[in-house]
Amino acid sequence: MIVILKPHTDDGQISRVLDALKQYDVAFNVSKGETVTVIGLVGDTSAVDREKISTNPFVERVMIVSEPFKKSNRKFHPENTVVNAGGREIGGRTLAVIAGPCSVETRPQIIGIAEAVRQSGASFLRGGAFKPRTSPYAFQGLEAEGLELLKAAREQTGLPIVTEIMSPKLVERFDADVDVIQIGARNMQNFDLLKEVGRTKKPILLKRGAANTVEEWLMSAEYIMAGGNSGVILCERGIRTFETYTRNTLDLSAVPVVKRLSHLPVIVDPSHATGASWLVAPLAKAAVAAGADGVIIEVHDDPARALCDGPQSITPPAFAEIMVQLKAYAALEGRTL
Amino acid sequence: MIVILKPHTDDGQISRVLDALKQYDVAFNVSKGETVTVIGLVGDTSAVDREKISTNPFVERVMIVSEPFKKSNRKFHPENTVVNAGGREIGGRTLAVIAGPCSVETRPQIIGIAEAVRQSGASFLRGGAFKPRTSPYAFQGLEAEGLELLKAAREQTGLPIVTEIMSPKLVERFDADVDVIQIGARNMQNFDLLKEVGRTKKPILLKRGAANTVEEWLMSAEYIMAGGNSGVILCERGIRTFETYTRNTLDLSAVPVVKRLSHLPVIVDPSHATGASWLVAPLAKAAVAAGADGVIIEVHDDPARALCDGPQSITPPAFAEIMVQLKAYAALEGRTL
Amino acid sequence: MIVILKPHTDDGQISRVLDALKQYDVAFNVSKGETVTVIGLVGDTSAVDREKISTNPFVERVMIVSEPFKKSNRKFHPENTVVNAGGREIGGRTLAVIAGPCSVETRPQIIGIAEAVRQSGASFLRGGAFKPRTSPYAFQGLEAEGLELLKAAREQTGLPIVTEIMSPKLVERFDADVDVIQIGARNMQNFDLLKEVGRTKKPILLKRGAANTVEEWLMSAEYIMAGGNSGVILCERGIRTFETYTRNTLDLSAVPVVKRLSHLPVIVDPSHATGASWLVAPLAKAAVAAGADGVIIEVHDDPARALCDGPQSITPPAFAEIMVQLKAYAALEGRTL
Amino acid sequence: MIVILKPHTDDGQISRVLDALKQYDVAFNVSKGETVTVIGLVGDTSAVDREKISTNPFVERVMIVSEPFKKSNRKFHPENTVVNAGGREIGGRTLAVIAGPCSVETRPQIIGIAEAVRQSGASFLRGGAFKPRTSPYAFQGLEAEGLELLKAAREQTGLPIVTEIMSPKLVERFDADVDVIQIGARNMQNFDLLKEVGRTKKPILLKRGAANTVEEWLMSAEYIMAGGNSGVILCERGIRTFETYTRNTLDLSAVPVVKRLSHLPVIVDPSHATGASWLVAPLAKAAVAAGADGVIIEVHDDPARALCDGPQSITPPAFAEIMVQLKAYAALEGRTL
Repeated sequence: MIVILKPHTDDGQISRVLDALKQYDVAFNVSKGETVTVIGLVGDTSAVDREKISTNPFVERVMIVSEPFKKSNRKFHPENTVVNAGGREIGGRTLAVIAGPCSVETRPQIIGIAEAVRQSGASFLRGGAFKPRTSPYAFQGLEAEGLELLKAAREQTGLPIVTEIMSPKLVERFDADVDVIQIGARNMQNFDLLKEVGRTKKPILLKRGAANTVEEWLMSAEYIMAGGNSGVILCERGIRTFETYTRNTLDLSAVPVVKRLSHLPVIVDPSHATGASWLVAPLAKAAVAAGADGVIIEVHDDPARALCDGPQSITPPAFAEIMVQLKAYAALEGRTL
Repeated sequence: MIVILKPHTDDGQISRVLDALKQYDVAFNVSKGETVTVIGLVGDTSAVDREKISTNPFVERVMIVSEPFKKSNRKFHPENTVVNAGGREIGGRTLAVIAGPCSVETRPQIIGIAEAVRQSGASFLRGGAFKPRTSPYAFQGLEAEGLELLKAAREQTGLPIVTEIMSPKLVERFDADVDVIQIGARNMQNFDLLKEVGRTKKPILLKRGAANTVEEWLMSAEYIMAGGNSGVILCERGIRTFETYTRNTLDLSAVPVVKRLSHLPVIVDPSHATGASWLVAPLAKAAVAAGADGVIIEVHDDPARALCDGPQSITPPAFAEIMVQLKAYAALEGRTL
Repeated sequence: MIVILKPHTDDGQISRVLDALKQYDVAFNVSKGETVTVIGLVGDTSAVDREKISTNPFVERVMIVSEPFKKSNRKFHPENTVVNAGGREIGGRTLAVIAGPCSVETRPQIIGIAEAVRQSGASFLRGGAFKPRTSPYAFQGLEAEGLELLKAAREQTGLPIVTEIMSPKLVERFDADVDVIQIGARNMQNFDLLKEVGRTKKPILLKRGAANTVEEWLMSAEYIMAGGNSGVILCERGIRTFETYTRNTLDLSAVPVVKRLSHLPVIVDPSHATGASWLVAPLAKAAVAAGADGVIIEVHDDPARALCDGPQSITPPAFAEIMVQLKAYAALEGRTL
Repeated sequence: MIVILKPHTDDGQISRVLDALKQYDVAFNVSKGETVTVIGLVGDTSAVDREKISTNPFVERVMIVSEPFKKSNRKFHPENTVVNAGGREIGGRTLAVIAGPCSVETRPQIIGIAEAVRQSGASFLRGGAFKPRTSPYAFQGLEAEGLELLKAAREQTGLPIVTEIMSPKLVERFDADVDVIQIGARNMQNFDLLKEVGRTKKPILLKRGAANTVEEWLMSAEYIMAGGNSGVILCERGIRTFETYTRNTLDLSAVPVVKRLSHLPVIVDPSHATGASWLVAPLAKAAVAAGADGVIIEVHDDPARALCDGPQSITPPAFAEIMVQLKAYAALEGRTL
């Protein structure tokens, strides 16, 4: 941590700042310039309160040098984390492909789609039972019944299931029923929910909030890991920008950035990022080329009749074609599907 | 709702789109141009699924004409809503001034600040008991004990209390203990929490999410109102932009925009928007000039020792000065403090 | 400037970084922590190339402490700059009110509007002769003829004229003909044009680019001032964000921020920021309350027939009403109109 | 174009709106709903002034159905445009790889880099002679001398040269000297410059502005094409968002989006988008996977000594490695390098 004093601070004032810093268990080093004096704090600065120091009347600015995330930080855990989820690995040599409809609608629908995506090589089934919708008047999902249908589809196909949780009241149920618990973008900073899922042993798929920085995303992973659950899978799904042609702007740079900052696996959701089925294939390929550990793709047998997110869903035959392409791209990265 | 067909769609294709639309109970009107055909849906289109129609292969785009919010919409409720909160009104002629520290820290701290802001004319006391912090390692608030201290401060000063809820598990307790339940910016689309507070009778202070549009904000108000709770107070607190000089960018245009779109009261939080104490006074005055129904201001007796958000807190004497200025601005708007 | 080395850099590596820094004429001070070493550069670091140092293999990050703008910096010029423009002052006790149509259209139009706004108390006439339009097929302004009409309106009313320049080829002509040369938001980083107008003696109204930070804006002012022209007036006109309800998001925080960082006058353009006539009055008042040195407002005698920007133009009677309100707000700030 | 009237507009008011519309040479069709009436304008609406209609007191909103770009629109020109630049094609089966330093510095530097990138398979040499720098105190390029050095490097290696123009005064010279004239991101809406280069016959590399939508970008291409120059190459180089980890956010979705909307070739600049050399390889591969027609990559023989943009430059050996990888990715897309 670096404390920059206001211009022309005199020796007496510098002493007063140093006195205030002495309460923390860190060493410091003073650089006096002609106009500006800089104090470097060294040692474990995680207990130092940056905001408090900022309010000191002689302090101009406080800059943080160390990254504030610990358990998710690659510096302290250089090897890639491989998350085991329902018997499959995420973050290893094999890319994870999570496919399925936005919403679970009926037993034949979810089982039919699950069979289809399994045959094309998907490794996980996704499907929404509890749906976060902008409007209270929109379809909110089949809820508990949806979970049962997902379990039936898992039994039929062997695919582990991934589905979103919205309420801390359901954590026990999700822990018992699903293979990967998804935290949606809107709940990325629902700290209460993060703490609750941090107490389970289930892998957590943590979507990036549409307006959250990479650092905030890793801090939310930190909330889960601080609770004892180290099985966090990060998922880039587009950020909010001024561009409205696509629903959000898929930030593929975040993939190599996260791989460098953190040891956690990172996957990409081109369906929600763009909101357009015709953009799924090019961006899924680009995600693999950028180094993602997998993709999550919305597949619906009849997009025009889907109860939600139809415009971005692709059909099972289109999904099968994408899988063929992704396989070739994965091979160039030394990976398999 | 307006459905724009792809260029050069022929009569047979137009018929097929019309057939698909006939399932909804709306009238429609077809405008055939040289290249583009447009179908206008008229009547109550709230049950029409925009996304489904978008996936029709002959449809280029679907545009929404009516605003999707109903209960919060000024069109259906032309008069201003005045929310009664702990015996005070928000949204009427008198501006609401909510003041207090970021976090409740100790009994003398919260009572001392409450007394001070009451003497300067504040109408509500704010203070965080449960704190949403980006880092799991940062101070998370005094929690239940904080609520008790707020109640003690209310008893001492008579000021109604405003504090943030983060967990649906605490709704009953907040309903019993506090006067205004705050939903923080990060939880603006925590739909589970919105539904829970919608079942109480307590006024809800709904902060705008840092990356949410005015329309999404009103849709979140709609979630609360759809549950039967019409006492929603909107609070603009800055949006996330590329500009990093201020913590967020205070969107004061949102004040007159919301007043036009909705009948709900809207207040402004210059402290969180800017993150800098020296910006509070000019932006609080600007908020009143733009037509806000009140402001929420962080006040701390010793900002340099505050457990959170010190840099944006002002002292009680600085608050007293701002109140004098706001009074003059309020008068120009025909309002009182 | 502060240079942060990579974690676990050893003494030999630190020496190599120091060797590389010795080429610059600055002192430095090394703080060695347990994991991270920090080097503070003190003295005049303006000649130190931050980017070069960043590429050193042992360097993690380089942070800048001093602000990169000099001539526009309040630290080196504590008093407010008052710009004299056509006999009127901008930045002094009297607020500047610049009013007029988006485009100059006809002689009676521009003279009629000029007369009307002068009677209501405007201090400058604005009007576009050369128009920056997104589409090459849209009306591009009356060009040279527009300048002549502005001069005629000035002769008739005595109001100094403000108009936008788009081409360096016209600098000589603008220098001869107009009182304030406007650089539009899209040209804020047209460095070629900035250099050219920096060689004139005419006041320059520099609009903030819709996607530019306050620092970049001040650096563009620096381009003009580095050429010898110190008469720069800054104009906040909204930044580009995800919110689409208003055309741009007016960043009123920028007003007190710029007043703190710089000695240059800053005015606000609520018309272009919002794109809606009904938002002009509340935001013009808010601008004055936030400390602006003036406003620029689009006025058209017949907005429905305006050749551009009709939706955001107000009529002369509406302008007269706003002036009455602004006068009262100005008085609260100890200023006059 | 669709005109939505205000709620409860009566027949007389509708007639008045229709009268106002009759001045345009378009047909229209009225859809009267219970609360809202909608008027569809059909035919060639390019001459209809959307803004004027918006100001009609009975009009709520005007929506545009047709895209405003014509010459760059794929609807009117379904085949891909292949631009011939200095004897090489851009937009055809072979991907364009434009490589070279940020700035031309010395004769040996530019010739050495040109030789190196040619040997690795680059098809064009880039290098800045006139540099757009945020600070007037930063190195501004070798200017005319830089152009001469580029020409020398072309003569030596046979590589066509790409360099940025900043001033309309230099159009003639660039037209004579260079193979592809680059318009930088900051000048994307410098309409004066766009018009000037539109009068040349040289291919124009048009970078997307950091805060410009895809539609605005195509409108700027339209400015060039409207002048008679159809050889426009679009270049995505990152947009400005709240995320600060990378310099800008590379918007790879823009590649398939532009390919769908327009027939023009589109290439990607991962160096400027990210500002970090270690991000160039993953994002260059992702760009090819997303369907780009080429990439532009900064290469410097000694990034630590580069006069600008060192942190994002890669060395010639690193470039050679990337070329090997890109070749494999290109093959998967049915393309060659």
